[in-house]
Amino acid sequence: MSLIRFGVSIPVTLIKKFDLLIRRKNYSNRSEAIRDLIRKELVEEEIEENGDAVGVLHILYNHHRRELSEKLTDIQHKHHNLILSAMHIHLDHDNCIEVIVMQGESQKLKSLADLLIAAKGVKHGKLNLTSTGKYLV
Amino acid sequence: MSLIRFGVSIPVTLIKKFDLLIRRKNYSNRSEAIRDLIRKELVEEEIEENGDAVGVLHILYNHHRRELSEKLTDIQHKHHNLILSAMHIHLDHDNCIEVIVMQGESQKLKSLADLLIAAKGVKHGKLNLTSTGKYLV
Amino acid sequence: MSLIRFGVSIPVTLIKKFDLLIRRKNYSNRSEAIRDLIRKELVEEEIEENGDAVGVLHILYNHHRRELSEKLTDIQHKHHNLILSAMHIHLDHDNCIEVIVMQGESQKLKSLADLLIAAKGVKHGKLNLTSTGKYLV
Amino acid sequence: MSLIRFGVSIPVTLIKKFDLLIRRKNYSNRSEAIRDLIRKELVEEEIEENGDAVGVLHILYNHHRRELSEKLTDIQHKHHNLILSAMHIHLDHDNCIEVIVMQGESQKLKSLADLLIAAKGVKHGKLNLTSTGKYLV
Repeated sequence: MSLIRFGVSIPVTLIKKFDLLIRRKNYSNRSEAIRDLIRKELVEEEIEENGDAVGVLHILYNHHRRELSEKLTDIQHKHHNLILSAMHIHLDHDNCIEVIVMQGESQKLKSLADLLIAAKGVKHGKLNLTSTGKYLV
Repeated sequence: MSLIRFGVSIPVTLIKKFDLLIRRKNYSNRSEAIRDLIRKELVEEEIEENGDAVGVLHILYNHHRRELSEKLTDIQHKHHNLILSAMHIHLDHDNCIEVIVMQGESQKLKSLADLLIAAKGVKHGKLNLTSTGKYLV
Repeated sequence: MSLIRFGVSIPVTLIKKFDLLIRRKNYSNRSEAIRDLIRKELVEEEIEENGDAVGVLHILYNHHRRELSEKLTDIQHKHHNLILSAMHIHLDHDNCIEVIVMQGESQKLKSLADLLIAAKGVKHGKLNLTSTGKYLV
Repeated sequence: MSLIRFGVSIPVTLIKKFDLLIRRKNYSNRSEAIRDLIRKELVEEEIEENGDAVGVLHILYNHHRRELSEKLTDIQHKHHNLILSAMHIHLDHDNCIEVIVMQGESQKLKSLADLLIAAKGVKHGKLNLTSTGKYLV
């Protein structure tokens, strides 16, 4: 991975505020923080373009709900080609959260997420799209 | 406004993708684009802290709706200390959009926005918080 | 505008929490609050589909910045077909906020917003897309 | 779980558009879709109030990066009281995504997420807060 170095000019008051922020966020130096801002911007652009994306969906539900787990598993199996992995966490006696990581065209990921969130008994769910990382050094 | 200049090291492939993005967005150079990323990050932090903020609320409504305009004007007058200005735009025969710019504690701005959005006849509304610019060079 | 009435079943504990929320937000009744939730959902779907949209852009800048106002006005005039109206607010001695309301294909609105935000001297800017209201009763 | 039933009045054109949307999203009926909208609204309110929340963080990184995995594991162990579970997925030869589910005060979850995202070599990361489900029927 070849690096280049270039200069950035910035008002003193602005960089002082930025230094405070990155220290609080524990960045080791300005370059690392700026690389992260650049990658964040690139990921936001990438997601908008409906290419191949990674999706992280979390759904919150009561696992005592009759037949809900079976239904959620069924839906996932029917779309196994889009699903990479799933993790199930017991929050308390009733509630559990399931995190499902998917990869594919972003429109397909949204439809699959809609299907899982719409299942009767799912209390809340949200899909977050991110980059596949392939073009992100 | 005194400027300083510092060096950023970055992988070649990453800066190439960033250069494409900022050219498409019409930035004059990398420094300007990076300053904008830094300010965007600072504004996001500032908004979370519930200090003094500027709010831009837009509400969409049918101005034929009886007594709605009067009600919206009433609410605004009761909170005139938070409101800087308002603009009314006729979208078509029925629909208009009103943009209300406010300044004050972000929690107060949110409550006022809730009040206006909840008025019967308002079809849709959204508040966006931004910085007062004071500490943003 | 013809209305229909239909029944919704909901757990008692859920509707109690919802009633508290809508009272705090000042809704006159549950129907109005639920219509607003439905419209919010429809607007979110509409925006994703890249059809005709309304955009509300706010940009924050220092109006002492040499030639910036002229540049911003120039860009707006070149795209006058997309711009409905603009409002300028003096926040303090240096800072002003300009709110520009646009209408057109959402991709075009995004490009125009990028152009204005990228202008040297603009400290911060954000575009928010909403519905034209045409299909939203 | 005791249910109540109440009536909602809504313009015909609006409910027609809503019916199309919920059919596309695969909801079994309007009540289920409206309960979901209500819960989504309640979760958004709950998250803003800095109480106990559940956080789903995903971070994208190159696992070949020297000492990064160890560092990420270290940080997680130091905050094991906030972390419920973690899942690691291999996206390709280089990239992996790690999903970390946390529970605790939302401010603490944000700080921990900042720490993990700021680790040198993490390409991208995002925290999403949701409800613990306790008060969400």
